[in-house]
Amino acid sequence: MHGITRPTLLVNEQIARKNIARMAEKATKNKVSLRPHFKTHVSAEMGEWFREAGVDTCTVSSVEMAQYFQKAGWDDITIAFPFNRLETPAINELCANGQINLVIEDKDTYDYLEEHLEHAAAYYIKLDVGTHRTGLPVTTDMSNLVESGKKLSFKGFLAHAGHAYRARSRDQIIKAYQEVQQGLAMLKAKYPGAEISYGDTPTCSIIEEFENIDELRAGNFIFYDWMQYVINSCEFEDIAVCMAVPVVAKHADRHEIVVHGGAIHFSKDQVKNEQDEAIFGALAKLTANGWEQITENQYLKRVSQEHGILHVDDKGLYDEIKVGDLLGVIPVHSCLAANLMGKYQTTTGRKIYHMNWRRV
Amino acid sequence: MHGITRPTLLVNEQIARKNIARMAEKATKNKVSLRPHFKTHVSAEMGEWFREAGVDTCTVSSVEMAQYFQKAGWDDITIAFPFNRLETPAINELCANGQINLVIEDKDTYDYLEEHLEHAAAYYIKLDVGTHRTGLPVTTDMSNLVESGKKLSFKGFLAHAGHAYRARSRDQIIKAYQEVQQGLAMLKAKYPGAEISYGDTPTCSIIEEFENIDELRAGNFIFYDWMQYVINSCEFEDIAVCMAVPVVAKHADRHEIVVHGGAIHFSKDQVKNEQDEAIFGALAKLTANGWEQITENQYLKRVSQEHGILHVDDKGLYDEIKVGDLLGVIPVHSCLAANLMGKYQTTTGRKIYHMNWRRV
Repeated sequence: MHGITRPTLLVNEQIARKNIARMAEKATKNKVSLRPHFKTHVSAEMGEWFREAGVDTCTVSSVEMAQYFQKAGWDDITIAFPFNRLETPAINELCANGQINLVIEDKDTYDYLEEHLEHAAAYYIKLDVGTHRTGLPVTTDMSNLVESGKKLSFKGFLAHAGHAYRARSRDQIIKAYQEVQQGLAMLKAKYPGAEISYGDTPTCSIIEEFENIDELRAGNFIFYDWMQYVINSCEFEDIAVCMAVPVVAKHADRHEIVVHGGAIHFSKDQVKNEQDEAIFGALAKLTANGWEQITENQYLKRVSQEHGILHVDDKGLYDEIKVGDLLGVIPVHSCLAANLMGKYQTTTGRKIYHMNWRRV
Repeated sequence: MHGITRPTLLVNEQIARKNIARMAEKATKNKVSLRPHFKTHVSAEMGEWFREAGVDTCTVSSVEMAQYFQKAGWDDITIAFPFNRLETPAINELCANGQINLVIEDKDTYDYLEEHLEHAAAYYIKLDVGTHRTGLPVTTDMSNLVESGKKLSFKGFLAHAGHAYRARSRDQIIKAYQEVQQGLAMLKAKYPGAEISYGDTPTCSIIEEFENIDELRAGNFIFYDWMQYVINSCEFEDIAVCMAVPVVAKHADRHEIVVHGGAIHFSKDQVKNEQDEAIFGALAKLTANGWEQITENQYLKRVSQEHGILHVDDKGLYDEIKVGDLLGVIPVHSCLAANLMGKYQTTTGRKIYHMNWRRV
């Protein structure tokens, strides 16, 4: 950790590659394809870690990200976000240079695309399998949406069991997965040629045998994070990112340690602990080669723009920590932390850039 | 708004300049200096708007920001964040090139600085005037901290009434200000030569006559945002930023409109409405030259990484909005939105960059 003076997002490449390998093996064993969501890392270099594990297609959540990864050599990309008409010129350019799979949920958009696309593209119909964010309930009459046109070819259905994030145990994750199964089976029977693309890290991490699914689209599993740990979709040892933060003040009467590491590093995403207190990150111990878990329930309790306030009521630990030290904090949501930081530092000291480490 | 296809942070330069002028006039009238906090805009170009209003000193919240603004010609900068020992080399470089004012709250840090500073620097003692984030209560014995040394010169006390953000009316803001006064008056009497630097946008916006204060350090007032509006520290017409977001789907049964504009654009900062529902942004109407307020309580109710879910239960308005439209959403917290976006677009179409629009 020598040389770190500011909040720095550490990544353990070995753990990340192990997480990738595990998911790739699971996909192979299940005879489903893996089209990982790259919105978590958004790094061309980390994309190569997937390629080395045999992955050759990916998912992104914006047209900007599709442009970034197409430039990095990915020629089959799903943009898992409802098609945005205003981006038509950018989509046309993407489709001219590679396979692009879009997501739609209404006939108007289908007609719009048929009229305005200049090149062929495939599309998925977005399903709402319980998250109620976007998409059509599986019981919807989709007969007017499943026909390929002159430009558009129907690829299948795209489901995201986002409600699995509300789980707090393996059993609840399994239940979230099972709830989705009936609908997917029905669609599979009705449209036997259609592919079912299915995502979310909790269920893809916990379920071992998949049915009615042709493709896994999870993404967060490359890093996992404190939320996934709390949900029980990973072990602490699977978490591949940790923020190194400098200690700048201590307040013994409040059991608080002030660090440089706030909302512009961690985001304001939170989980609740068993006492229903908000947690913005979990304290970990930095080691020469990475980090280790410490006594539980020592955590980031408050973040403002740059400040983080750690709750450290383990007296021995509190006394050990000095102003000027570097601490580790596991982010609650690794995707948002990576987006904010714009770059990573591997535990061996190498820098890796995120799409957000910008250009002018 | 022609040409906008993605989430874009609009800034109305006229409103921002008016906000700056109002605060500068108030400072002049009160014979206090204005050392605005630049953590809100973090833009060299917007810094010039302050300079044109007669401001020649500024406040920042990180060493990185101090480096950015010193490079942009600011030669008297307060780093309003507890001194971080790990940044000593960077601080030394900053002090070699301009006036730097640090913030400390313990004798150890004072001694450390005396030993390690290579050039002169000034320092403030951080007060805790009710926010309980950092600093010393005004009743603390600070006798060992108020002596200038060989490198360090004692400048005064730095107070941030962050608890004013918990106010929900002008009266509550005034009360937050008054609560702080007694402590400041006591310090002023005890250390007549010490300067009192005082910040936070709510009280600096509402209070007209300041006592016991030598310097105003507010920053958010350049833009304001939905939180400041809810707190009652500004009028809707004072809000200088608005996010333009594309409409990508509608769900009439849930009164929901899906936009491209999520946690990586707005952050997850929230305020509660009168029904105690979380609000991540407030719907506004985009016009040819900016935006206008609409019926209240039409708002961003949920954000994930890229998705925003707008609650629009005004039926006429819901029906008017079409997929492919561009809507305006006032961010809850403009500092965090600006940090995420990395750039602005003025309502006249010009791009302005934030420090985060990076370099490699």
